[in-house]
Amino acid sequence: MSSQAPLPGNAPMILGSNLLQDPFLGPAAATLDLSRPEESLPLRPRVGRWMQVLQDTLTDFFEQRDGGGKFQEDAWLRPGGGGGVSRVLTDGGTFEKVGVNRFAGGGEIPAEMAARLGSDRTTTEQVDFFATGVSVVCHPRSPMVPIVHMNVRYFQLNRPDGQLVDHWFGGGLDLTPTHPHPEDAVHFHQTLRRICMEHHPDYYARFKAWCDRYFVNIHRDNENRGVGGIFFDNLRPGENGDLEAEEAFALVRGVGLAMLEAYGPIVDRRKPMPWGAREKELQLVRRGRYAEFNLVHDRGTKFGLQTHARIESVLMSMPPSANWGYNLSWPEGTFEHRLHQMLPPREWADGIPEEFLTPVR
Amino acid sequence: MSSQAPLPGNAPMILGSNLLQDPFLGPAAATLDLSRPEESLPLRPRVGRWMQVLQDTLTDFFEQRDGGGKFQEDAWLRPGGGGGVSRVLTDGGTFEKVGVNRFAGGGEIPAEMAARLGSDRTTTEQVDFFATGVSVVCHPRSPMVPIVHMNVRYFQLNRPDGQLVDHWFGGGLDLTPTHPHPEDAVHFHQTLRRICMEHHPDYYARFKAWCDRYFVNIHRDNENRGVGGIFFDNLRPGENGDLEAEEAFALVRGVGLAMLEAYGPIVDRRKPMPWGAREKELQLVRRGRYAEFNLVHDRGTKFGLQTHARIESVLMSMPPSANWGYNLSWPEGTFEHRLHQMLPPREWADGIPEEFLTPVR
Repeated sequence: MSSQAPLPGNAPMILGSNLLQDPFLGPAAATLDLSRPEESLPLRPRVGRWMQVLQDTLTDFFEQRDGGGKFQEDAWLRPGGGGGVSRVLTDGGTFEKVGVNRFAGGGEIPAEMAARLGSDRTTTEQVDFFATGVSVVCHPRSPMVPIVHMNVRYFQLNRPDGQLVDHWFGGGLDLTPTHPHPEDAVHFHQTLRRICMEHHPDYYARFKAWCDRYFVNIHRDNENRGVGGIFFDNLRPGENGDLEAEEAFALVRGVGLAMLEAYGPIVDRRKPMPWGAREKELQLVRRGRYAEFNLVHDRGTKFGLQTHARIESVLMSMPPSANWGYNLSWPEGTFEHRLHQMLPPREWADGIPEEFLTPVR
Repeated sequence: MSSQAPLPGNAPMILGSNLLQDPFLGPAAATLDLSRPEESLPLRPRVGRWMQVLQDTLTDFFEQRDGGGKFQEDAWLRPGGGGGVSRVLTDGGTFEKVGVNRFAGGGEIPAEMAARLGSDRTTTEQVDFFATGVSVVCHPRSPMVPIVHMNVRYFQLNRPDGQLVDHWFGGGLDLTPTHPHPEDAVHFHQTLRRICMEHHPDYYARFKAWCDRYFVNIHRDNENRGVGGIFFDNLRPGENGDLEAEEAFALVRGVGLAMLEAYGPIVDRRKPMPWGAREKELQLVRRGRYAEFNLVHDRGTKFGLQTHARIESVLMSMPPSANWGYNLSWPEGTFEHRLHQMLPPREWADGIPEEFLTPVR
């Protein structure tokens, strides 16, 4: 999509003409003095600009690994303010469907809407709302390659005079295997633990547990969607012992770019593996559970359905195909049974649990 | 499943030993004097018994038309009272998946729960709640054969001393084509109009419009799920000019058995038609919309997910497989485009609209 090289999470960004051209960052961007040291500029345009860079980096990452597929780009405007750039790769060599969405923008909103968005500052005033984020869902063709999902986001509420009322970050990265490869879950979690540890000693454990609690089909007897990862929301700079704004932004950059290290090697080693009809069938059943979670429980999807965001972008996360059986179950010793044994939360970063060392067929 | 012959909607039923054995009809059933004329017995056990007969009749109907597939039966109990009998046919010759579910039972519920169920009688008391119903979803293998859905239900609220507080009927039958055959929509609606007219002069128009308003994916720019049919709820005997209890029960019997005449001939004429990959692909996309409606909007599914009913029975309505494309559209003159032209509500009972007389390919 672009020739942007992947940025390490802590590298400085170059704010440039792209920023000034972005219609979603608002008129404030146009008045920025770009000759000032970057760190002295306000957070909002820098986060907005970084989301652009992240979207380019991730579309490059998936195109390189796909070997043939190209992203189709659609820009869209939301009635009421803001919009987004959706990039979707369909029917690729490695990937059946990958969506890399970016949104930015906002507008005036009533106080109760701000509360619904997650603000804990009580105010009776109208506030200006700004949000930007990137979200990724990748559905590979081969059942050997797991599904991955990533989201990073930044919210800001301001008084009409520009004074900051509230702001917070959110994000996460999680893995949904469709065939049991316990070592993939271990690699994924170890990578996330290392990245989180670079920013805060408590975050991996806290965000891992949050992820395990969030991606759950409660209507399926609390079945987890996959093997988890990390998830966090409403991370308010400098509150409750949390990171200050600049450090929180650095953490979010780390999470956004973790895809490369946490998921890339898994794709590389699983893609060449052979598979047959039984493996495909299990993938389609797990994709059905994925669709259920997104439509019934996922807050982002519900928010999109209620706020009249562009529907094709909101439902970009849906699997390209899915199956629903009736009363399915598999005997112990099968790979299908093993996959379901992997779903209850575990400390994957500590290594492969002993019970998963016996072979299945 | 049974050797019960289809009952015409207005035939008398034979209350017999089956009734006394049904654990879901409660102890009241055991004390009934079955030597009394049937019409003099209370409505509740007769409706409960008729739901059993309807379930048998419809499982016979689908088995006969499938030519090979057999229903698998599972009985289940709901914690708190009642339960159901689920019958599911999977991987048949004609049908990929048919579910014919029956539920009956209830228990003590708080007053606000009664209001949520649909009661408009304000009371601060605990009430005893009883419900029984049959629901059907049929997903054919061939894209030439439309999906069909049927539901009939009866709710009753009583004081602890047995006095009736409130009761009502609900029901409906609707068609979701996956290939454009306008004459099927006409046959379906004409059959429903004739059946409704036997009971009340206004009901077809009222229930047809209700169906058109209900089965809508509002998040898809108000796209209707299919070509509709009839739908009604909270039909309170003797209120607002509505039918008295016995007549309302006769209407509901007509709606429950309408499947045979309204859907049977469509299956018979569409099943032998050839189809290819393009036809299958459109079916899978429409099944995706069907899944979206059920998970995001359908009140019955939401109610089931919230009340911890047996999940495999609640989600029996999900398609056996479904696809999600990205930004799909089809040029005028294609059968895919024609199918989507058939979705906005129309007076199908008046015949095929002229715009559908031109051929498509």
